[in-house]
Amino acid sequence: MKQKIKTTAVSGFPEYLPADQLLLNQLRQTIAETYRSFAFIPLDTPALERREVLLAKAGSETEHQIYYLENNSDDLALRFDLTVPLARYISEYGGALTFPFKRYQIAKVYRGERPQKGRYREFYQADIDIIGEGLLPLSAEAEIIKVLATVFKKLAIGPFTIKISNRKLLSGLLAWLNLSEASAEILRILDKLPKIGEAACRRELEKLELNSSTVKEILEFVSLKENVLEKLGAFDIKHPDFVVGLGELQELAQCLADYGVSAADYAFDLSIARGLDYYTGTVWETFLDNYPELGSICSGGRYENLVAGFNERAFPGVGASIGLSRLFYQLKTAGLLVDSTIAVSDALVISDNRQRGEALADSLRRSGLSVAGAYGPEKLKKKLALANHWSVKTVYILGEEELAVDEVSVKDMLSGSQKRQALSDFI
Amino acid sequence: MKQKIKTTAVSGFPEYLPADQLLLNQLRQTIAETYRSFAFIPLDTPALERREVLLAKAGSETEHQIYYLENNSDDLALRFDLTVPLARYISEYGGALTFPFKRYQIAKVYRGERPQKGRYREFYQADIDIIGEGLLPLSAEAEIIKVLATVFKKLAIGPFTIKISNRKLLSGLLAWLNLSEASAEILRILDKLPKIGEAACRRELEKLELNSSTVKEILEFVSLKENVLEKLGAFDIKHPDFVVGLGELQELAQCLADYGVSAADYAFDLSIARGLDYYTGTVWETFLDNYPELGSICSGGRYENLVAGFNERAFPGVGASIGLSRLFYQLKTAGLLVDSTIAVSDALVISDNRQRGEALADSLRRSGLSVAGAYGPEKLKKKLALANHWSVKTVYILGEEELAVDEVSVKDMLSGSQKRQALSDFI
Repeated sequence: MKQKIKTTAVSGFPEYLPADQLLLNQLRQTIAETYRSFAFIPLDTPALERREVLLAKAGSETEHQIYYLENNSDDLALRFDLTVPLARYISEYGGALTFPFKRYQIAKVYRGERPQKGRYREFYQADIDIIGEGLLPLSAEAEIIKVLATVFKKLAIGPFTIKISNRKLLSGLLAWLNLSEASAEILRILDKLPKIGEAACRRELEKLELNSSTVKEILEFVSLKENVLEKLGAFDIKHPDFVVGLGELQELAQCLADYGVSAADYAFDLSIARGLDYYTGTVWETFLDNYPELGSICSGGRYENLVAGFNERAFPGVGASIGLSRLFYQLKTAGLLVDSTIAVSDALVISDNRQRGEALADSLRRSGLSVAGAYGPEKLKKKLALANHWSVKTVYILGEEELAVDEVSVKDMLSGSQKRQALSDFI
Repeated sequence: MKQKIKTTAVSGFPEYLPADQLLLNQLRQTIAETYRSFAFIPLDTPALERREVLLAKAGSETEHQIYYLENNSDDLALRFDLTVPLARYISEYGGALTFPFKRYQIAKVYRGERPQKGRYREFYQADIDIIGEGLLPLSAEAEIIKVLATVFKKLAIGPFTIKISNRKLLSGLLAWLNLSEASAEILRILDKLPKIGEAACRRELEKLELNSSTVKEILEFVSLKENVLEKLGAFDIKHPDFVVGLGELQELAQCLADYGVSAADYAFDLSIARGLDYYTGTVWETFLDNYPELGSICSGGRYENLVAGFNERAFPGVGASIGLSRLFYQLKTAGLLVDSTIAVSDALVISDNRQRGEALADSLRRSGLSVAGAYGPEKLKKKLALANHWSVKTVYILGEEELAVDEVSVKDMLSGSQKRQALSDFI
């Protein structure tokens, strides 16, 4: 019989063999545990939303990537991010929640775009947001940035920099230069600066018919690197947006210090503009110092009003999103996810006597280990091969000889060393 | 402005306020950790599958409940269970896996049926399966049943009984009585026995034009309660299915004893037939002893060949599924999910000095706690109200007075008692 049904993975919908799956789950769990340690609540909204809810917040690009469901009375579609569901949730249940409301959600989102390496149609996002009611102090930014820095430290993926700006600075500068009308276009170009470099950026800006001294000032502004706050004071710009933005950045610097975020983990960098119009104040992107070619691995910022379009009340928020599936692909490709501790199980108990074998296995499980048992008629050699397939760290052998004297042979699979211990050490 | 966009939850797509969400997550995590402790791997297949894959395995009822996606070249649809994706996965990657292959998957599935109380369109299933290559010993059943018994004990939802049968027994009996042709219909009726009772069952069976002594024998057979294995021997039935089924049940009894499954947690009960044709040997359903009205909270069994329809190789399996969303609804409704330890955060640090407050919070986080901070200008009373809203257990107050002498006031929110401790006890 010829096989007719296609069981291969669908392009853009990643799935993994056990070792990689365990590695991805570990990454996800580290993020979740860190989010949780800062008292964020793990919300879990449905994967499907009403079409009108998604369309109210989708940009023109995203709109075309939405997966709609056939014939259903509620006109459902798959979520394309986790922020729109959060906005709907806050709009709907705001009255029953306590603010500031801190939630995280690590879940799959769906975008019908052309899949490429590391770009998927179904992928995990790991979102974290703090939502205020009416007002939300700048310490919310410091808290989110601290959580992110803690995540990246725990992932042990080397030095990183969270590059922080405030959109009001650049928009204030452009208004001061009478360039407000072209600002969307200019921001779009500046956002590409890290990718295309200064020369290409200059050429693109000059195409907008800005004079060269203006282009120079803009590029100088976004290229400020050290002592950025001081240097900004020296730019004699009096536009109120700029003044407010500078004040916010100064306050944020103080907040970050108070919250104990290491100065090595972030930098003020005015080239960070973020494509999305969504953000209204603080914005940031995160880069791995030794792997700039990976691009930003986590972005975030402040938005004035999460529920705009759904509800008249004001819920300002600060949030960030880690593109988990993409990050996993990037880290793996860069060789940064080598973990020798990943195993199908911590221990394997081998015995012909499944009763005594399982009694030992249960004791090990109670101590928190993941434990498999092999009690079948296969030869010891074949069972030890299983331990290798599963990357098991320790094998406990309960042969007739051991059982006769109430002992167990404990084999360290990494070193190959083996020793006898009393069974009573474990049970 | 009138609000036009509907932000209410879509019927059949459950979502929860924080306290319930935390409770549900705890239930899910207990199941996941128990599955993992027995060395099952947490696979995570895509929520979308090709239409042809789902249709190959859908029953006529399920087929009409599948959610299809509009216009997409891969003809995608949302999975209606986690078994079909597993079958596709094994069929596709079987060559790269080590057998027996033990996996669990706790994920949402989708069925476009009419929602009712506790019946959803999007709901979690918590599946666990052992797949063999060619052969799979009966110890697989014992292992899965042991895992389930461990889960239900950890959930602390009171006494439960895993009622176990073997489909070969009943089909052997029916063949012996020359009723093989009517067997599907008879099994369907017997499956309703716990719900509709013996009298109603008898009436339905008599409608099939079985003579009353046959009906009596069938009902006597499925009503056997104690010493079932011995009594079965006394039924002088020589059909090979029956003989094999009895042998398997006897072997399973020995396995369960060897694996240390408590005799109080299971019973052999031949009324368990399971509607699905899917299962081929051992089958079981789980009932809470004190809440029989909840019906079965977990079912499972053995299937001869998981990948039939996808692939010519034989992969026998044993598996079980806990309908997590429905179980959560049931347990909550029955008042069995009262957990006073569920809190948005374990601790809240209150201080006007956010630097010293966060230093304390970080120390507590490092000890594994979930910790929030309240450092704003609000009054102490308002901050303590926050602790109540969040069901925080312990509040740490670092006021001016405490800071001056390097101490902290530790308030137990349950008892209301408060004491001073040296900050050095924590940092």
